[in-house]
Amino acid sequence: MSEAKAKIGVLGASGYTGGELVRLLLRHPRAEIKALTAERHAGAPYAKVFPQFAGIALPELVKLEQLDAGAVDLVFCALPHGTTQVVIKGLAEKAPTLKFVDLSADFRLADPALYEKWYGHPHQAVELQAEAVYGLCEIYRDKIRKARLVASPGCFTTTSILAIVPLIEAGAIDPDQVIIDSKTGMTGAGRAEKHNMLFSEVSEGLHAYGVGHHRHMSEFDQEFSLAAKRPVVATFTAHLAPMNRGIYATHYVRTLGGAGAEQLHRVLADFYRSEPFVQMLPLGEVPQSRHVRGSNNLQLGVVADRVPGKVIVLATTDNLVKGASGQAIQNMNLMFGFPETEGLTQLALFP
Amino acid sequence: MSEAKAKIGVLGASGYTGGELVRLLLRHPRAEIKALTAERHAGAPYAKVFPQFAGIALPELVKLEQLDAGAVDLVFCALPHGTTQVVIKGLAEKAPTLKFVDLSADFRLADPALYEKWYGHPHQAVELQAEAVYGLCEIYRDKIRKARLVASPGCFTTTSILAIVPLIEAGAIDPDQVIIDSKTGMTGAGRAEKHNMLFSEVSEGLHAYGVGHHRHMSEFDQEFSLAAKRPVVATFTAHLAPMNRGIYATHYVRTLGGAGAEQLHRVLADFYRSEPFVQMLPLGEVPQSRHVRGSNNLQLGVVADRVPGKVIVLATTDNLVKGASGQAIQNMNLMFGFPETEGLTQLALFP
Amino acid sequence: MSEAKAKIGVLGASGYTGGELVRLLLRHPRAEIKALTAERHAGAPYAKVFPQFAGIALPELVKLEQLDAGAVDLVFCALPHGTTQVVIKGLAEKAPTLKFVDLSADFRLADPALYEKWYGHPHQAVELQAEAVYGLCEIYRDKIRKARLVASPGCFTTTSILAIVPLIEAGAIDPDQVIIDSKTGMTGAGRAEKHNMLFSEVSEGLHAYGVGHHRHMSEFDQEFSLAAKRPVVATFTAHLAPMNRGIYATHYVRTLGGAGAEQLHRVLADFYRSEPFVQMLPLGEVPQSRHVRGSNNLQLGVVADRVPGKVIVLATTDNLVKGASGQAIQNMNLMFGFPETEGLTQLALFP
Amino acid sequence: MSEAKAKIGVLGASGYTGGELVRLLLRHPRAEIKALTAERHAGAPYAKVFPQFAGIALPELVKLEQLDAGAVDLVFCALPHGTTQVVIKGLAEKAPTLKFVDLSADFRLADPALYEKWYGHPHQAVELQAEAVYGLCEIYRDKIRKARLVASPGCFTTTSILAIVPLIEAGAIDPDQVIIDSKTGMTGAGRAEKHNMLFSEVSEGLHAYGVGHHRHMSEFDQEFSLAAKRPVVATFTAHLAPMNRGIYATHYVRTLGGAGAEQLHRVLADFYRSEPFVQMLPLGEVPQSRHVRGSNNLQLGVVADRVPGKVIVLATTDNLVKGASGQAIQNMNLMFGFPETEGLTQLALFP
Repeated sequence: MSEAKAKIGVLGASGYTGGELVRLLLRHPRAEIKALTAERHAGAPYAKVFPQFAGIALPELVKLEQLDAGAVDLVFCALPHGTTQVVIKGLAEKAPTLKFVDLSADFRLADPALYEKWYGHPHQAVELQAEAVYGLCEIYRDKIRKARLVASPGCFTTTSILAIVPLIEAGAIDPDQVIIDSKTGMTGAGRAEKHNMLFSEVSEGLHAYGVGHHRHMSEFDQEFSLAAKRPVVATFTAHLAPMNRGIYATHYVRTLGGAGAEQLHRVLADFYRSEPFVQMLPLGEVPQSRHVRGSNNLQLGVVADRVPGKVIVLATTDNLVKGASGQAIQNMNLMFGFPETEGLTQLALFP
Repeated sequence: MSEAKAKIGVLGASGYTGGELVRLLLRHPRAEIKALTAERHAGAPYAKVFPQFAGIALPELVKLEQLDAGAVDLVFCALPHGTTQVVIKGLAEKAPTLKFVDLSADFRLADPALYEKWYGHPHQAVELQAEAVYGLCEIYRDKIRKARLVASPGCFTTTSILAIVPLIEAGAIDPDQVIIDSKTGMTGAGRAEKHNMLFSEVSEGLHAYGVGHHRHMSEFDQEFSLAAKRPVVATFTAHLAPMNRGIYATHYVRTLGGAGAEQLHRVLADFYRSEPFVQMLPLGEVPQSRHVRGSNNLQLGVVADRVPGKVIVLATTDNLVKGASGQAIQNMNLMFGFPETEGLTQLALFP
Repeated sequence: MSEAKAKIGVLGASGYTGGELVRLLLRHPRAEIKALTAERHAGAPYAKVFPQFAGIALPELVKLEQLDAGAVDLVFCALPHGTTQVVIKGLAEKAPTLKFVDLSADFRLADPALYEKWYGHPHQAVELQAEAVYGLCEIYRDKIRKARLVASPGCFTTTSILAIVPLIEAGAIDPDQVIIDSKTGMTGAGRAEKHNMLFSEVSEGLHAYGVGHHRHMSEFDQEFSLAAKRPVVATFTAHLAPMNRGIYATHYVRTLGGAGAEQLHRVLADFYRSEPFVQMLPLGEVPQSRHVRGSNNLQLGVVADRVPGKVIVLATTDNLVKGASGQAIQNMNLMFGFPETEGLTQLALFP
Repeated sequence: MSEAKAKIGVLGASGYTGGELVRLLLRHPRAEIKALTAERHAGAPYAKVFPQFAGIALPELVKLEQLDAGAVDLVFCALPHGTTQVVIKGLAEKAPTLKFVDLSADFRLADPALYEKWYGHPHQAVELQAEAVYGLCEIYRDKIRKARLVASPGCFTTTSILAIVPLIEAGAIDPDQVIIDSKTGMTGAGRAEKHNMLFSEVSEGLHAYGVGHHRHMSEFDQEFSLAAKRPVVATFTAHLAPMNRGIYATHYVRTLGGAGAEQLHRVLADFYRSEPFVQMLPLGEVPQSRHVRGSNNLQLGVVADRVPGKVIVLATTDNLVKGASGQAIQNMNLMFGFPETEGLTQLALFP
């Protein structure tokens, strides 16, 4: 793509990841928002659903069916899982050169049988599934560059896969002994009117959810198994914390071959040495989720446990940025051959 | 003790656990607050440090040295660790029948060598240490009844020892494979002017602290080893969550002898069947910290992991009540032969 | 009523004011909960809608139509306005001796024309309206004692009427120049699934709502006019603050007859001298909403403005207790001849 | 200044306004940070005091006395008031062409007598005071362009002066009848270790402070009097709300000459028509503080009260951006002849 701006559509623009895509795209020097869809709010100006954009010129919200697929170069799909695969299939038929960055879970599992097992229905676009690339830029950069359809991973998986996969690949930890205790801010649960997301239901308290059986486990399985070159399963527990943004994942791992925390730290530091969005803290230092808020950064810490052979790996991202919309744009940059950090250099907003 | 009210002193009454002791004691039918100490605020009315008590008759704050040890039957020590042992030693010499409930860590470790190792200096009251009883009522009830000095355990330890010890004792889990991922509200860090406890430093975010080397580990070691009848060490990570109150502990355990989540649930349900302050949730249900806020309750949940042989045990308390001042009063009730729930029947304040 | 316990029904028990009624009634020595209604949750145990009550014996939730009106002495109506008047009318016909404490707005306006103007439809129980008593105990205590139907006022009105009416009655302030700037916690908006009450929509920010035209203005008009003995209107703005509980009202008033802040302070101090639930702070001191949280208290402060003749009156309550369920029980106590503080002596939970 | 970058020093870089200056300057295309001072943290890397900047090249923190005044073109002073005037005086003597944007209150009051009255000591740099320009860009743009020393106003004053001054100047409201009820987030209170700013002291509650006698009143007096061309005093009350960022000011005004809300809306809309950082909401719409978070925007709403002649004007900014560091950079842009929005185009971070 030349210096011309990429023409972008955001499907499902009224949710939090949609709003975050718009925030980032509006300041992206190589992108231009051409279409915004939201079924319930079609016909409304965008500032009606996100008043922070008052006074900014943006397309009016339209229904998905009103989208002119030929008028855009790439669409971000911030739609519910299950329906996304049908939508993308339809658009890909209409506009074969159209690129897709899907923020839903629909194309993340390479194995359609696994998809059916975890999501309870057969995949509706198996042929597209076959070409979809798992959009973890730091791991699949080269494949993403050539992809038409990227399945951009979510917040829990991005944060923990980036923390753990290099360690498994290096043979530094036992892939069968990984425990992920993850805490997320409330935006991770979306913007739908759910009783259990009301302010007074979730403020001033903390709780686990989806314990023992959370759909994102399937992505951990897939990626950890690929890294280990054999099937492995991890233990994962998600918790909801009273804050808007942030994933904070505490990983309990067991080293192999006599490795200690120093070795694990070195493996990760080497892996991420040239990565613009990953900050490796010095050995023994602990990250805080608030220090990545609003940025596309991942901060990583490694601390030795007093139990020999056990190490604690701490990882934090902003679930709406590196865990969703920022990473989606990072994928877009790769797909268009833009510099990977284009439009993603915002610093964290702390406090 | 007859129907007369017990005369109580609260040492260190200007901190959060001090304020919580006063809140509970003021409505305790068998207790009367006779003295409140606070070094920096000596001479001030109590409502100056805790304005919620405006209009309530309470003794003025005095310095510790002004305390008339003969005028009280029992003192609660909500003082910093290290100094508490010296204070209690002095008072015990002056008033040999005086009873003590210590909320600091000073008398919790039965082994003085262990104390010295974790706290960095020799214990100053080794003879009192020898008679001190670890004040976990559900486990040491009989000893507490006869004790003169009770070391009331803190929030992390109360919550997780009550969740784990019955399982170790029953031989249901591997005591060498216990991982405790605990999250606490901010009051757990006390009321001192610390930079890292300012609102804007800790709101809207989450982080681990004391990773790999937290003093409360020594109590886990002590109690888990007693239960296992051999030395065991656990992995423990504390996190600070943006809420005032609440401990939420997620325990990853490995079953023994082919046990599953059902068996673990049954062990805990049996153990706590008659306990007034422990609520066992049905198998598979997950507690929330906000549902115990302000109460002396512990809510416990047991969920099977999809990894066979692994189970997740969830436990939550209010760190200032069951994790501090409520449990301290529960200990007092036992020491005086009062009904154990006296003064502790407040229901949780949710939302 | 003899020493027997009053038999109580709570209609609309699944909302926050319902839950708060249950919390308080369970520890009320003279009340027994006999029925709990909630349309959508009928058939469920109460701990399903409020898990903090796990393990406590309570009637199962039933539909309103299943209520046996003859089996209860008093019902609290925590139902939506508009429908409440029809429900109470029906129950009063079935059970003429049944007493009612209505927490909705349905019977608060004595003038049916005014009701119709503000609520947009004719009142459906005009004859009951005529006998209803406005349940502000500190002002209408004698009438409440004899009432069958008490319209218990809400949080904004309770807080500000108690702050302002004694000043108008004493002729100390200009009733035409009262400005009420009030801030409420989120529970004031109820427990319904509303988009604009999701955690991420309302945390970390503040905004006004219902500006210029809020229904509670009609109650200010009614009570301020009664106090002034002529029609007056006040300016009132409500704001939503990111906290669960609390009303914090800042009143800007203009003194009459050369009065200053001292005189206003004295008027209020005299008026509330013997009131158990009102704490008058010393002149110049400022209350905080957190210091009444969970209690039935009102804290009042009076501060001189530097502009002569202007005074700032600050008032705070817990919107769910003195602003709703606590006051409703205070009304019940009066109606049954119980001590007015019975069941309402819980101290504030701070922090 | 040519296309070369301006060389910038940030004095007092370890506080919240210092951190916010760094956040914005790092992405400013025409500015380069050459020096960062912080007395207590001198010698530390900047990421030690603000870990969100981990991995970013920045000068080490130095003491003020180590600053090379000749090496910078402009300094931002984020220092405590009182000491700032002495610091600036000293630097101006050493480096006469150095420009200053002062974020403290030291140079905001044009009248030294007024300064002495409100701050309790004589001004130490009266001659500099004489040349200082009040840095409210939307009002004093032309003077700022030529200034060497700009006194950048703070959050309360920026927000309310921008809301009220155009209305006074237009003769649309009675300048003697302005009431400002303002609510601020916690960062407005700074980053010092104060007991009353601990998380648990201020979360989950709200309170007024500085009632009747707040230093910022002096700036309201100065600017409102200038607009009215005669001395006027306003009533102002500040409140602390449990959120990190945001000023939300509710203004109660009385119209003149029969004007209504429409006229006031028109006055403000006309005044701000071409202003890039001010968004005028449609008549009757109400802003929310969260929708300007992280941005340099001011959102303004005008709503009619039901009391004739009374209007409510609502204004909100981010106290750290438009209320501090963003405005300071806006001033710098004017002083250097840069485009006024340079480096300030970040969109609000919501949620």
